[in-house]
Amino acid sequence: MINVVGIGPGDLEMMTFKAKSALEESDVIVGYKTYTNLIMPIIKDKEIVSNGMKQEVQRCEEAIRIAKTGKIVSVVSSGDAGVYGMAGLILELLNGDDMKVNIIPGVTASTAASAILGAPLMHDYCHISLSDLLTPMELIEKRIAMASEGDFVICLYNPRSKGREGHLEKAIEIIKKHRKIDTPLGIVKNAAREKEEKIITTIGEIDYTVVDMTSIVIIGNSSTYVENNNMITPRGYKV
Amino acid sequence: MINVVGIGPGDLEMMTFKAKSALEESDVIVGYKTYTNLIMPIIKDKEIVSNGMKQEVQRCEEAIRIAKTGKIVSVVSSGDAGVYGMAGLILELLNGDDMKVNIIPGVTASTAASAILGAPLMHDYCHISLSDLLTPMELIEKRIAMASEGDFVICLYNPRSKGREGHLEKAIEIIKKHRKIDTPLGIVKNAAREKEEKIITTIGEIDYTVVDMTSIVIIGNSSTYVENNNMITPRGYKV
Repeated sequence: MINVVGIGPGDLEMMTFKAKSALEESDVIVGYKTYTNLIMPIIKDKEIVSNGMKQEVQRCEEAIRIAKTGKIVSVVSSGDAGVYGMAGLILELLNGDDMKVNIIPGVTASTAASAILGAPLMHDYCHISLSDLLTPMELIEKRIAMASEGDFVICLYNPRSKGREGHLEKAIEIIKKHRKIDTPLGIVKNAAREKEEKIITTIGEIDYTVVDMTSIVIIGNSSTYVENNNMITPRGYKV
Repeated sequence: MINVVGIGPGDLEMMTFKAKSALEESDVIVGYKTYTNLIMPIIKDKEIVSNGMKQEVQRCEEAIRIAKTGKIVSVVSSGDAGVYGMAGLILELLNGDDMKVNIIPGVTASTAASAILGAPLMHDYCHISLSDLLTPMELIEKRIAMASEGDFVICLYNPRSKGREGHLEKAIEIIKKHRKIDTPLGIVKNAAREKEEKIITTIGEIDYTVVDMTSIVIIGNSSTYVENNNMITPRGYKV
């Protein structure tokens, strides 16, 4: 049996009861080192198989191999296991094989970041990953253009990392064609982890250098405003 | 002090530890009856202020009034408090007033539904609410068109209720202009609650009458496929 477990943003308090139970009932925990370290207090007595970034396929293949020996395996993802996480890859690799898979959702990075910024996600929004490792840059740019034109609040996952310094700049340039220069933009670094940091600025004044691979960037829609250092997107109630 | 608490989709096991602690530390719980009933085992000894649908503004005003007397108040939202929930309304109504507000995120309906359907949200996706109570139908239709053109996976919140029978049909008509007729479409009713139900069909063959106000509808992107009754959107890994 395989549990694909969304452990939430990092803080163990932000994990669900179901995720914790799934980890506790497991024989083996498989995951990227940074994530297995976050949950070490829960899994310290378990067999742990962890490896580095960009080894997602090998990690999931290993999890399936171990599960086929009859052990209960939990594959961990940060945030929600089904949002740029390991749930899809496990199902893809099983390729129709008969294996019990429990996918356990968690608090995803965008809503964890939103809670820190105030309430920017109160209206229709989208997730776009700026990583072009697996997606052509043209498609990413098209999605940014469509989301901007549709006045969606936009959450950018993987906004910046080594080798992708220019992607966020390009994304913001596209958004500027559709939104006012003072549209609020929130950055949360290390949401619900040590060194959590919150920055509220605008699409015109963003300092790109503060954004790193631990960051989520949220761009408001045409109604989003800032009050008391909170980023608020009205739902439309008469208040 | 006000906690705005995302209680997750319904099953108490899908709540975070932080959400439960916030409820337990509260003097008063404020929320829509359906939601306070879901968490009754946790809040049964508390003062509970609950009322019906469409009374969101009054409910939040009441929460603020009570909090100003010095009590700890938790306002509960299903799913994540910041996704079509109460977090924004509380901040709007506070209107800059000095009051400590803790927003506690939860597992939102789309990712709870996704985990039941398989892994449809593995790539860029958006949330669109089909309720035109607070949003003009033209804007909703524009967003559906933009999301379709951008090949986003699309999660429809509030897909159907009394008085809005035709909205889902209209949405699917727009999506059909951009996607193949056999694009997978998943419906989850009562995700993580009693009478949970999962339906996987296509945009061409959807039976609109099964969709109700407890449903989340997820429409795949151009790569989404179905295998073993799981809806899978590949992230792009070579498998």
